[in-house]
Amino acid sequence: MMSLRVHTRVGCVRPLPGAERMAIGTFGSTSRAAAEAVESLPGVAEVVPVSRPFKLASREVIPEDTVVHVGPVPLGGASALAVIAGPCSIESRDQILATARAVRAAGATALRGGAFKPRSSPYSFQGHGEEGLRMLRAGADQHGLKLISEVMDASQIQLMDKYVDMYQLGARNMQNYTLLREMGKVRKPILLKRGISATLEEWLLSAEYLLAGGNTQVILCERGIRTFETYTRNTMDISAIPVLKKLTHLPVFADPSHGIGKRDQVAAMARASIAAGADGLLIEVHCDPDKAWSDGAQSLFPGQFDRLMAELRIIAPAIGRSICTEPAVRSGW
Amino acid sequence: MMSLRVHTRVGCVRPLPGAERMAIGTFGSTSRAAAEAVESLPGVAEVVPVSRPFKLASREVIPEDTVVHVGPVPLGGASALAVIAGPCSIESRDQILATARAVRAAGATALRGGAFKPRSSPYSFQGHGEEGLRMLRAGADQHGLKLISEVMDASQIQLMDKYVDMYQLGARNMQNYTLLREMGKVRKPILLKRGISATLEEWLLSAEYLLAGGNTQVILCERGIRTFETYTRNTMDISAIPVLKKLTHLPVFADPSHGIGKRDQVAAMARASIAAGADGLLIEVHCDPDKAWSDGAQSLFPGQFDRLMAELRIIAPAIGRSICTEPAVRSGW
Amino acid sequence: MMSLRVHTRVGCVRPLPGAERMAIGTFGSTSRAAAEAVESLPGVAEVVPVSRPFKLASREVIPEDTVVHVGPVPLGGASALAVIAGPCSIESRDQILATARAVRAAGATALRGGAFKPRSSPYSFQGHGEEGLRMLRAGADQHGLKLISEVMDASQIQLMDKYVDMYQLGARNMQNYTLLREMGKVRKPILLKRGISATLEEWLLSAEYLLAGGNTQVILCERGIRTFETYTRNTMDISAIPVLKKLTHLPVFADPSHGIGKRDQVAAMARASIAAGADGLLIEVHCDPDKAWSDGAQSLFPGQFDRLMAELRIIAPAIGRSICTEPAVRSGW
Amino acid sequence: MMSLRVHTRVGCVRPLPGAERMAIGTFGSTSRAAAEAVESLPGVAEVVPVSRPFKLASREVIPEDTVVHVGPVPLGGASALAVIAGPCSIESRDQILATARAVRAAGATALRGGAFKPRSSPYSFQGHGEEGLRMLRAGADQHGLKLISEVMDASQIQLMDKYVDMYQLGARNMQNYTLLREMGKVRKPILLKRGISATLEEWLLSAEYLLAGGNTQVILCERGIRTFETYTRNTMDISAIPVLKKLTHLPVFADPSHGIGKRDQVAAMARASIAAGADGLLIEVHCDPDKAWSDGAQSLFPGQFDRLMAELRIIAPAIGRSICTEPAVRSGW
Repeated sequence: MMSLRVHTRVGCVRPLPGAERMAIGTFGSTSRAAAEAVESLPGVAEVVPVSRPFKLASREVIPEDTVVHVGPVPLGGASALAVIAGPCSIESRDQILATARAVRAAGATALRGGAFKPRSSPYSFQGHGEEGLRMLRAGADQHGLKLISEVMDASQIQLMDKYVDMYQLGARNMQNYTLLREMGKVRKPILLKRGISATLEEWLLSAEYLLAGGNTQVILCERGIRTFETYTRNTMDISAIPVLKKLTHLPVFADPSHGIGKRDQVAAMARASIAAGADGLLIEVHCDPDKAWSDGAQSLFPGQFDRLMAELRIIAPAIGRSICTEPAVRSGW
Repeated sequence: MMSLRVHTRVGCVRPLPGAERMAIGTFGSTSRAAAEAVESLPGVAEVVPVSRPFKLASREVIPEDTVVHVGPVPLGGASALAVIAGPCSIESRDQILATARAVRAAGATALRGGAFKPRSSPYSFQGHGEEGLRMLRAGADQHGLKLISEVMDASQIQLMDKYVDMYQLGARNMQNYTLLREMGKVRKPILLKRGISATLEEWLLSAEYLLAGGNTQVILCERGIRTFETYTRNTMDISAIPVLKKLTHLPVFADPSHGIGKRDQVAAMARASIAAGADGLLIEVHCDPDKAWSDGAQSLFPGQFDRLMAELRIIAPAIGRSICTEPAVRSGW
Repeated sequence: MMSLRVHTRVGCVRPLPGAERMAIGTFGSTSRAAAEAVESLPGVAEVVPVSRPFKLASREVIPEDTVVHVGPVPLGGASALAVIAGPCSIESRDQILATARAVRAAGATALRGGAFKPRSSPYSFQGHGEEGLRMLRAGADQHGLKLISEVMDASQIQLMDKYVDMYQLGARNMQNYTLLREMGKVRKPILLKRGISATLEEWLLSAEYLLAGGNTQVILCERGIRTFETYTRNTMDISAIPVLKKLTHLPVFADPSHGIGKRDQVAAMARASIAAGADGLLIEVHCDPDKAWSDGAQSLFPGQFDRLMAELRIIAPAIGRSICTEPAVRSGW
Repeated sequence: MMSLRVHTRVGCVRPLPGAERMAIGTFGSTSRAAAEAVESLPGVAEVVPVSRPFKLASREVIPEDTVVHVGPVPLGGASALAVIAGPCSIESRDQILATARAVRAAGATALRGGAFKPRSSPYSFQGHGEEGLRMLRAGADQHGLKLISEVMDASQIQLMDKYVDMYQLGARNMQNYTLLREMGKVRKPILLKRGISATLEEWLLSAEYLLAGGNTQVILCERGIRTFETYTRNTMDISAIPVLKKLTHLPVFADPSHGIGKRDQVAAMARASIAAGADGLLIEVHCDPDKAWSDGAQSLFPGQFDRLMAELRIIAPAIGRSICTEPAVRSGW
């Protein structure tokens, strides 16, 4: 056992425990001479330069898959594929209870629903706030589901922490660095969505803000990028899934609802995401989509969601995975 | 039986035989009064206005799936999924024979290979021309495969027609209207690739040129679009597959090799394409990818292609399809 | 004189005083019958439906140009064209003083400089914070310039308000709705930059958040969009300038430094912006660009800035405008 | 005087006469040893490796501005700025005569008009062909203008050569390599438009096809790229102008009509193009735009074109240029 003191400009030295040996990350460009000096110390196996601008998020630094735990249920790595489902906005107690019942029956492991809504127009519905979170918590608890909801600003963290099991950080806030820095201090899992025109490198650098802040429970979620196409709302970048799985150890989810934006095509994109290697899905399901206050056109009917889950159970084994089918309540969530 | 004479400004009237009744397409905007006059004729069931700018390519005009026949083998509709494989460029007789043997053993139904190569730089290898086509024909025949090769200009049609079973019309020529018009007169199947920044509507309008010219044996092939991403060569638009299947009756193929451009991720994109509903695949396989004259970085090793075919056989049933596994030679190709 | 009480769902009724008559904006879709009922009231000249999703930002609602006042100096409308110049980051007292002296001598009317820096990587320099603002204030005051600096989060407003004459709201925060809502309450001018892949409509909707919040002193600033080009950092969308001038009454500025990202081409883009009708410019100038901590490659040398100002003085009359050439200190800033 | 024989794989050796010395371009990657062997030959001053993928188009190979001659009138270099104007499609003899008269009176130096039209839909008007060219020639001759028209296919060259002074190669054909190769053999100037999503490098490589084929009279013409914006038809990439002027010696023109696609904003984009350093403009003017068969919404009225020319005459001196104001007929065109 030894103690190692390192001076770097940014003052950031981080222990990265692995299965077989302990890595210690330092930042800033270091001369080859300095690297050799460290390498010659007793107990130091090797000094590995990291070529990517993202460090803690890269497989170069952490080769093994990160497994994120939401309560007792693992996400990522070799875990069963997990499906998080629910409405875009929390509208009413009845809407949440009916949707929670339906998605749990079909095999979902967590409930989604927005209480704070980022809207392009200041005149659109902006969400029910705390009252919505209370409804969502009740719906999740009643059906043995965990829950996720979107945080839009650091000022909401204290309030939300009483209700959520997992935070969503939305596409429009992917480069809100103040929020990223605050969320790095939180000790609950974060699902980080990709910005609508972000490159993979920019996205991983945003994840790096969370990891550098101390929160290692980060999931990346592809949700469609902006292209020239007008027949779809966005163009879901399925290719991001295998590329990310190579670049990073973080779990990769996919949101086919925002990814394509049309109900009829959501199932096809969900199947494609799983076939491409995603660790899980985030899907909009509504007990009565035609009356939804937002995103109705891309929300599945409960029956459609049920059929999709059946299709996914057939595809998953083709890539050596399975779908979490145990009712969440039994597994102790 | 009756004879119907219609005057329209563009002079284009086309019989469209369907399973249950005969449709007759006319073009140009027609007044409601004229439509009613036609509708009142004996033998006319109804006049259906077509809202899309593409007509013959739309499901509004032709609701049933088009099945394209390459020899005795059907592509599209409820047919078995077909995989076309082979090198980017035809390099040598040995390369073609070795690759043909490998892809046939793994279950491919046709061989691909370029004799005329569209290259960004005038100083890059431009293809072996007729000598290459002769090699490709020999390789295909020896292993009971059909073959496809790219046509770049109307002046090549006469020569190519002696060798090919199916033409590829490449991404850079998707809006080469002179070539599209000439290819409309050809009586062999055409695989029409999507332009690198084309919208689905522009692509279907290019297909419309072929159909309006009289060639109904058209397959659409997604091959990746240009986005801001730099970790991949292109961004494969998997979402185009289900959207096209809804808009058009033409078969939809996918080219995961150009779609993502990196060998390690080709299999993931091939699986995703099938899971999303593609009718078949076009894949670059090379007997020795590291020595390929072009596209080596995205060409699969024969062993990788073999494993991919096994994965696809598991996924296909999830969408009610199967992979063509009968050696092509036995089925009379 | 009359009092008018209107009930609308969003509860938003706003008086919009114009030169000749008072407009009253209400929101929410209203039936034609309701509109006619209002129109029949005494003192109501007409009810004008607003077709754009942005309302207070549109010329339909407010036809006359908005003139923003930074102290006594007007920006927009028929005012002289204004140029805001300075470094990307505030680095040191000497750097600020030297740069302020140079840009004032060349004819700039305000000084720019970042104290809080949004950076893609958590390991990059993040700005000097309050200490930087103090330096910037001193540099501006010493040379009779007003100053602008970027706000990244609502928590910085109280601190910044002691130092700045005008806030910059950066591209990455264009859809940070929490920040937009807070900035709507501020009573100093805001320069709102366009998000890197934002459409004009999304941008105007973000301005609408500020206007709806009560801050009418808003300037839009084009700063380049993301395209496929790799020879430039961004692609400056000069076409946004005349289109915005038609859609909105707000002043439109241009930032050619971020717009193109290469020092050699900044002057060409600055000239083009003015020729296209921009109301002013935001330009990066550094006393010693090769030693800049950030954006050095796109910062002008003082001599280049001086030559550019001379060129702009020739172009401005072609569109019926002039460049503010009076030293700012004399005009009472 | 000496004779130099060089063997290279692509067999391409090209003399490049300059003002002070003769350069000889060879292609293919050459070892440093071979370069040194050539450098040691008598009469060889130096061997300069060219880093860009485009060679003959680069300033590294040819530092001096290329001046293209259309009859006696020079385009590019330090020449007066030239404006080419006319309708999108050639519709009738009267339309051409009226438009030719108007654009010549305002100061245009050449007439544009399409006889072969590339149209997205096979059902749109495809052009009058030779009859149209005859009208265009008559209109140009009657008003002392030179003329330009678009070639879509190699099969049209022989016919067109009887009528045109200059060929336009359109955006959709920018990567039609068969056409590029044939046009390289033509001995009249070519205006090469940028593909709608082409990078500058791809565009210059297409110019390289023309130059490598032996045609050195090439002008590049920016005409707008595809972006996410919906308020304009395209996004005119003004930044391409100064970047191209640095990368290449070829003249750079701009087409503000297609660049922005809306009549009201064409003048702003024309002014911006000149302010950014363009060598000339290609503008759509129609004697009666509201009745135009194509592109009416972006065609200027003659009066608008006249006012624009007056504005350009003010701006040009700011960049040390002038507008060609001598009636073309007098200067011997």
